[in-house]
Amino acid sequence: MSASSDSASPNFAAGVPCEASGDRLLPAIAQDATSGRVLMMAWMNQTAYDETMQTGRAVYFSRSRGKLWRKGETSGHQQTVRKVQVDCDADTILLQVDQIGAACHEGYASCFFRTVAADGSATVEEARLVNPADVY
Amino acid sequence: MSASSDSASPNFAAGVPCEASGDRLLPAIAQDATSGRVLMMAWMNQTAYDETMQTGRAVYFSRSRGKLWRKGETSGHQQTVRKVQVDCDADTILLQVDQIGAACHEGYASCFFRTVAADGSATVEEARLVNPADVY
Repeated sequence: MSASSDSASPNFAAGVPCEASGDRLLPAIAQDATSGRVLMMAWMNQTAYDETMQTGRAVYFSRSRGKLWRKGETSGHQQTVRKVQVDCDADTILLQVDQIGAACHEGYASCFFRTVAADGSATVEEARLVNPADVY
Repeated sequence: MSASSDSASPNFAAGVPCEASGDRLLPAIAQDATSGRVLMMAWMNQTAYDETMQTGRAVYFSRSRGKLWRKGETSGHQQTVRKVQVDCDADTILLQVDQIGAACHEGYASCFFRTVAADGSATVEEARLVNPADVY
């Protein structure tokens, strides 16, 4: 174990251009801080990242809607951020979160509820936590 | 628990345009199949995905170099793919892998070796597994 410290701001200039807004976006992965399950992948711009760091609640940027997306604003399924990590190139963000309710808008605990076989067939091996019609 | 089955091909048409090649790319997350640690995030085009599914070895597409990147080709640090999952929108791919050596080109087990504090300072809490100069 070694410990060193320096600055590690995400490099938004290296991000993906958002066609809707002109922002540069970086992928942000949310992982359950307790179970280690990968819950979802979404995008952040600088503003979403800054608000996430300031509030401790995950805020993303919707590529399709071209605006900030405060996770859980509609559903109540917020994410409390326990830890923020950046990768070696500082162009991907990893959040360790406590997830309220279901991360997925389809009502599953994780957006990754389907396993794909080599022949392209997919299997869902879990039940929904909530009925999407009840929360959206 | 419920089990259902359908087709779930990643939707590359919804991917991010690659400036170097014109391909559409989707984010692909590699997670250690045993520990659950998120190892890295990279990109796939259709060809990289198809080769991954066919060979059981992770193949990505390098945005910067604009070509296929067979993980471990230079370093020997290959990833054997145990499970492939897609998210609800079929625009992000999650691989459960067995990682040989270090996932990160900087020699760390995971590319996410830095934790960022609210003030922007970063801390590295682990040692390198390998010396990058020995493998690249």
